[in-house]
Amino acid sequence: MRRVGIALLGCGTVGRGFVELVERERPRIAARHDVDLRIDRILIRDNDKERAGVDRRLLTRSAIAAIDDECDVVVELIGGVHSAGAFVRRAIANGRNVVTANKALLAMNGAELFNAAAANDVSIGFEASVCGAIPIVRVLKSAFAGDEIESIEGVVNGTCNFILSCMERGSAFAEALSCAQERGFAEADATLDVDGVDAAQKMRILASLAFDAPVVRESVVGIRGVTPHEIERARIGGNSIRLVARAERIAGGVAIDVAPRELDANHLFANVRDENNTVVVRGRASGEIVLSGKGAGALPTASAVLADVIEIAKSPSRRTAYAI
Amino acid sequence: MRRVGIALLGCGTVGRGFVELVERERPRIAARHDVDLRIDRILIRDNDKERAGVDRRLLTRSAIAAIDDECDVVVELIGGVHSAGAFVRRAIANGRNVVTANKALLAMNGAELFNAAAANDVSIGFEASVCGAIPIVRVLKSAFAGDEIESIEGVVNGTCNFILSCMERGSAFAEALSCAQERGFAEADATLDVDGVDAAQKMRILASLAFDAPVVRESVVGIRGVTPHEIERARIGGNSIRLVARAERIAGGVAIDVAPRELDANHLFANVRDENNTVVVRGRASGEIVLSGKGAGALPTASAVLADVIEIAKSPSRRTAYAI
Repeated sequence: MRRVGIALLGCGTVGRGFVELVERERPRIAARHDVDLRIDRILIRDNDKERAGVDRRLLTRSAIAAIDDECDVVVELIGGVHSAGAFVRRAIANGRNVVTANKALLAMNGAELFNAAAANDVSIGFEASVCGAIPIVRVLKSAFAGDEIESIEGVVNGTCNFILSCMERGSAFAEALSCAQERGFAEADATLDVDGVDAAQKMRILASLAFDAPVVRESVVGIRGVTPHEIERARIGGNSIRLVARAERIAGGVAIDVAPRELDANHLFANVRDENNTVVVRGRASGEIVLSGKGAGALPTASAVLADVIEIAKSPSRRTAYAI
Repeated sequence: MRRVGIALLGCGTVGRGFVELVERERPRIAARHDVDLRIDRILIRDNDKERAGVDRRLLTRSAIAAIDDECDVVVELIGGVHSAGAFVRRAIANGRNVVTANKALLAMNGAELFNAAAANDVSIGFEASVCGAIPIVRVLKSAFAGDEIESIEGVVNGTCNFILSCMERGSAFAEALSCAQERGFAEADATLDVDGVDAAQKMRILASLAFDAPVVRESVVGIRGVTPHEIERARIGGNSIRLVARAERIAGGVAIDVAPRELDANHLFANVRDENNTVVVRGRASGEIVLSGKGAGALPTASAVLADVIEIAKSPSRRTAYAI
């Protein structure tokens, strides 16, 4: 059995979910995949916080200690671009594989990080960075390997969808947002979600996997301007407003478009509720393939992180098949 | 660039789709995956049949010639259990990787074939054997690697669903069946589809990937007994009848259940039409993940076959990560 040491950076909502899931699933993973997963170190910022179910002896406030200790995989669940980016760079330079749920970091510095990973012969797993538990990264990488992808469209931001769903049920925007924050779906600063930037970042990541072509046009409109009145008017007409993100092949490259859309009640996306996500991939040979599932939440996101860790643990080569 | 030679066994609907797709996608696959795919031989039964777009020089009626020639992957698209099984066994014994869309063969002889493949250090790709273009095999293998799967449920037989959809629109059973056959969704002998055996075979394959436990209970009812009257009565009540297949963990193993169900118009499965399939996988951490897409048809099935061929072509080790 292969022993795989994990350094976990960050112990917030998803981090604690990851600790819980590894603890629970370790015996099954060992039996099925022949790898013995161990979290050796957990990087935290605040030593005094209560963290139920987390072994305090693993906690450290030293990023250098966490990253430089012997480990096979660094799991980055800090979020944000600056510290997280510095830690991921250091992990790669030290020859560590990285798994991250950080779409902002990849959208901003993906090319640099994947080049560094390739140069150091390590992998970056990022399934959890897009659409939580939905295995859209894997599906684009492997299931569509023999097909030409024409477009990707979806409800890819769980926070926005949760807010719009609450507003449909009569909540005000601010109330819906704080409810999303309480449930752990939205960041303390939900600006990136609400303004559509997060959805656009996800579509950039998916587009880079799908199209082998540069983004030449991008239009991003968030849900900040959507009024309770518009939602109510849509609801009365039997419709729903959803933040729809789309990437498609156009002449010279890829166009990305993110905007709130009023949709008929029968529309696939109108039936995506709360923190759920749905993505439709249209392939020239495959036709439409639809994937739906939880786009946010501690355990769903942690399950995507863990799937990447297991894939790296089992891989004979450390290098990823694809970089974005 | 790695040159990958393919021996194609069978040149029916899916086989011709595969030839067309390889021809069309070869340059893109070479650029993206660094493999040069070539179909070197095509095993056929009848030399005189018209096969538009197929290079006649590749055709052979000698299975031994096709399998024993130097090649990297044998793609089995003959169907049936006896000849196909003999050819797949020979291919494995000769050290060839195999990709097959043949769920009957795997349901019947899967354990033996996967053991033989492991002993010979070759892979068997079988994504296309279940639910056409839907990447359910990949998703169960990798995306749920870190989660415990509780149940799998779905509309997994495109032929039955096509027949039920036609009957909803007023066709008689026989008319609907021959329409499915004309469109290439149903076999000449559709008994396995209509009696639910095909759906049960698919659930056995999925269950073996998902549960690591034996099937201890199986109940299979097909759509043969569904009358136009029942469908009409359901339709008038706003409902739909669908053949629903389910596999779930129970005490001591796995229970498989296949039966026609009357479903409310809002039910996810009621909205699966024609040859489409939908599968819902429920994971303890991930929650419900839904996958939908074309469950039959030449190009959708061929795209799943081709994805497996590319995965094998790129794999540093020849051995599959999982066997069923």
